[in-house]
Amino acid sequence: MRKLLNKELNRKSVDEFKQSAKTPLIIVLDNVRSLLNVGSIFRTADAFLVESLYLCGITGSPPNKDIQKTALGSTETVNWRHFTTTAEALDLLKSNGYKVYAIEQADCSIPLNRVAFEKREKIALVFGHEVKGVDQKVIDMCTGVIEIPQWGTKHSLNVAVSAGIVVWDISLKLNY
Amino acid sequence: MRKLLNKELNRKSVDEFKQSAKTPLIIVLDNVRSLLNVGSIFRTADAFLVESLYLCGITGSPPNKDIQKTALGSTETVNWRHFTTTAEALDLLKSNGYKVYAIEQADCSIPLNRVAFEKREKIALVFGHEVKGVDQKVIDMCTGVIEIPQWGTKHSLNVAVSAGIVVWDISLKLNY
Repeated sequence: MRKLLNKELNRKSVDEFKQSAKTPLIIVLDNVRSLLNVGSIFRTADAFLVESLYLCGITGSPPNKDIQKTALGSTETVNWRHFTTTAEALDLLKSNGYKVYAIEQADCSIPLNRVAFEKREKIALVFGHEVKGVDQKVIDMCTGVIEIPQWGTKHSLNVAVSAGIVVWDISLKLNY
Repeated sequence: MRKLLNKELNRKSVDEFKQSAKTPLIIVLDNVRSLLNVGSIFRTADAFLVESLYLCGITGSPPNKDIQKTALGSTETVNWRHFTTTAEALDLLKSNGYKVYAIEQADCSIPLNRVAFEKREKIALVFGHEVKGVDQKVIDMCTGVIEIPQWGTKHSLNVAVSAGIVVWDISLKLNY
């Protein structure tokens, strides 16, 4: 098994990325505090050809030195916009026909391993603040809540790790 | 949909964690440079009841202030040990009957979505240095290479995000 060189990976150029059909998935960040987490989520969004990243409330936006540290250039490829409030972003998504799911721990949540979507369904996923999670008022606007089952002692995963897990899992369902 | 309080999550205590049957999965870090990434991987290992974390070469180990920033106490639950070289860790794993997979981009790699394991099979996963990845000599010692399919412009994902995705995906296969 020979490790491949970067040039052998045949990754897209920035122009090819912009012109590619995207995964019909929009990531919404509801007041995510850490710029390093925001940058890491940009990098994940690039990897899975996510359609757009909606940065809401106090969530930082490019250009920003700390976002760039972990985004490593993916702010140049991934489509993004900033909303003053997460509610505005959700209003737009719903009027555009997206089903909106908060990633949270809630009664009536659907475990990630039991989520089923139609291929090419238009989905938005809301990830919340590192300590407070997704705001209850935002959850009240959602179609449903998806939860990553966890079996240990800690209450949650890092938000960039959660985004990686859920975006990977749901991108497969929307694309294949 | 009501967001649950931390106390409603019924997470394990440290003692309950220690006494629980674990996911038969060992995470090996081959010279991971960033202590924040190491801490984040501890937190992921706690969430998915990973059996052990093998920290190899330059990979930092607890107690460490920067690991603690992202591990948030999970260094107290997750079993870990340090090895001077990754080769030593792999020798031990193989003598203990673990199948060892590097997470890398290589010819003959298996895409993560096509990996199949038996329930309760003993698996070890090797994650590499943030820039250099898993060393070719370490790959040469592995049973196989698992690759996260990526469709964007960047060559790879953040190592803590990769660990989240792969540990989530494979934990499900080993437990259900």
